[in-house]
Amino acid sequence: MTLPSHGANPKYVYGAAKINQPDHLLDFSVNVNPFGAPSVIKEKWMEWYQYIEDYPDPLASQLKKELSTKEGIAENCILIGNGGAEIITLVAQFLKEKRVLIIQPAFSEYEQACLAQKCIVEHHILKEEDWTLEISDLLYKVKQFDAIFLCTPNNPTGVIYDKQSVIELLEEGKRKNCYIIIDEAFYDFSPNNSTYISLLLEYPNLIVLRSLTKMFAIAGLRLGYGAAHPKVIKELSVLKPHWSVNAIAMKAGIECIFQDSYILQTKQHIEAERRRLEVFYKEYAFQMSDSKVNFYLLKDPSLSEAAPLFHFLLKKGIVPRHTMNFPGLDGRWLRFAIKRAEENNRLMEALVEWKNRK
Amino acid sequence: MTLPSHGANPKYVYGAAKINQPDHLLDFSVNVNPFGAPSVIKEKWMEWYQYIEDYPDPLASQLKKELSTKEGIAENCILIGNGGAEIITLVAQFLKEKRVLIIQPAFSEYEQACLAQKCIVEHHILKEEDWTLEISDLLYKVKQFDAIFLCTPNNPTGVIYDKQSVIELLEEGKRKNCYIIIDEAFYDFSPNNSTYISLLLEYPNLIVLRSLTKMFAIAGLRLGYGAAHPKVIKELSVLKPHWSVNAIAMKAGIECIFQDSYILQTKQHIEAERRRLEVFYKEYAFQMSDSKVNFYLLKDPSLSEAAPLFHFLLKKGIVPRHTMNFPGLDGRWLRFAIKRAEENNRLMEALVEWKNRK
Repeated sequence: MTLPSHGANPKYVYGAAKINQPDHLLDFSVNVNPFGAPSVIKEKWMEWYQYIEDYPDPLASQLKKELSTKEGIAENCILIGNGGAEIITLVAQFLKEKRVLIIQPAFSEYEQACLAQKCIVEHHILKEEDWTLEISDLLYKVKQFDAIFLCTPNNPTGVIYDKQSVIELLEEGKRKNCYIIIDEAFYDFSPNNSTYISLLLEYPNLIVLRSLTKMFAIAGLRLGYGAAHPKVIKELSVLKPHWSVNAIAMKAGIECIFQDSYILQTKQHIEAERRRLEVFYKEYAFQMSDSKVNFYLLKDPSLSEAAPLFHFLLKKGIVPRHTMNFPGLDGRWLRFAIKRAEENNRLMEALVEWKNRK
Repeated sequence: MTLPSHGANPKYVYGAAKINQPDHLLDFSVNVNPFGAPSVIKEKWMEWYQYIEDYPDPLASQLKKELSTKEGIAENCILIGNGGAEIITLVAQFLKEKRVLIIQPAFSEYEQACLAQKCIVEHHILKEEDWTLEISDLLYKVKQFDAIFLCTPNNPTGVIYDKQSVIELLEEGKRKNCYIIIDEAFYDFSPNNSTYISLLLEYPNLIVLRSLTKMFAIAGLRLGYGAAHPKVIKELSVLKPHWSVNAIAMKAGIECIFQDSYILQTKQHIEAERRRLEVFYKEYAFQMSDSKVNFYLLKDPSLSEAAPLFHFLLKKGIVPRHTMNFPGLDGRWLRFAIKRAEENNRLMEALVEWKNRK
């Protein structure tokens, strides 16, 4: 059985696991905002129809300008992409055949994209179960690599790495000509917006990856961006297909980025639900990662690997994300998105059944 | 003055040409269907809103299946892309650092994408003004290259190359391990659907590029595909960002490809208008390329380069496509899309004014 390398599109999970797909699914494998897209998208949707016929602005000038204002960085530090995934593949092309270190566990696309570009990829695996970034274990390796990928807030654990440690890594990278790529796809779910984007000019070796598809639940439209020193952005731009960002995604992005109250409400909900889940998991003796964002890892300590629980839930129409392809997790944990209260309730009910199954 | 490298987005042309942009524009620089998208897209638009939140199917399974049926080729011969432009950049990556020949004049993205991948790019420039593919001038060069790009029906001339000559090129390429990349972005505007897609298995060195954004006027959504031997498709797939095709484009594509009467009406209109324009240009002593599709090249033989006519039209709010960056044309011609009758009338009126200007 080869499970799909990503969450979402549950039909592929059921196919691979050879389990009949129930009529109603609750998909916990996708880490997008449980409230869906901001209402303004639906309100403007019909109006945006007119933009399908013309070629989209290849420079995404308006969205770039708005992001520049919001983030307080220059426009030439920004490259708008067809989802964060496009920026990852551009960075991988930029690093073609170079030596790359990935701090694991982490989003699997860095490795996929770098291997496709014939990079030499190694993994630095953080210790289960707190996944702390022990910087002394890492700094001495920096000189051996051309680039290091770091995902914080981390996907899949939800852990935010210690800021001082990350700064030390950036410093050492700057000294040793090593790019530090920080994926901040989930930064806007974290309580204090954990980000390094203000350090771009200070660290020309820093590349920040951002996504607009998670907080704003527009994964189907595709929108993300990279932020880096203008010299890096220029090199990445040359590698990008000319009109890679579609017109509707750009319109949606411009509406989304200033949805402050929607973002605040989302964060408050996620925080409250996460606390509720923590209490439940403690009571029922599950292990949960120290997540600060909208998903977490879960383990039943009585199992050596999570497959039986995974299959139990799939049969009930509850779709977790397996962790078979995360180095350092190797299938022992399952990842769950934090969804709406009633959906999280259904998950908890199913887990009570699991505990009472014999 | 550096003019933009593509049509569409006229604000960039007016900016570069330092001409005030009139309130109303007629954009002849974009070669999309003058009737706009098929009506089914607008009818289904609101229904498709629901697909923005979930990740799109990374394999585009349904669209691939429908295309496979329509084109009579196996699904594993197809790679769906974020517009034809994405497939071009994937092919360029596939050809990284190789020797590439481009049969010119041709769409400028082949050169851009190949140069970004450090290919050695040379041009084989066809003779103005019939741009015939004289195969004996070309065959002896095949062994010197790893790949040859050919655009037929040709953008920008609209000329369709002789089929027997193209087959000879495919044969020689097969013998000499040279990929022949045939861009058929406008094949469905040509009277007999000039295509080489049925030869994929016979010629494992053939890569066909297709676009869905021209005939179906969905350039803002981005959708295209590559068709080739399964071995080539597999290598291109590895280089593609995971979810590069957005969910709405896929839905639109599935609706579009079987719009037979819409395609037929479009072709009949284009043909009738092209004949009407031919008569007019002959009467007013303009030179027009022997186009078989929905755009053509135009020249005022009294000018050594087209800039004065280009500026004259821009000031009137009529936007042609300059040809400064097409090797072999070098700005002597202008390209015009064939639009609706009343729009073509306005162009003809402006050209009468041009001829009578002194």
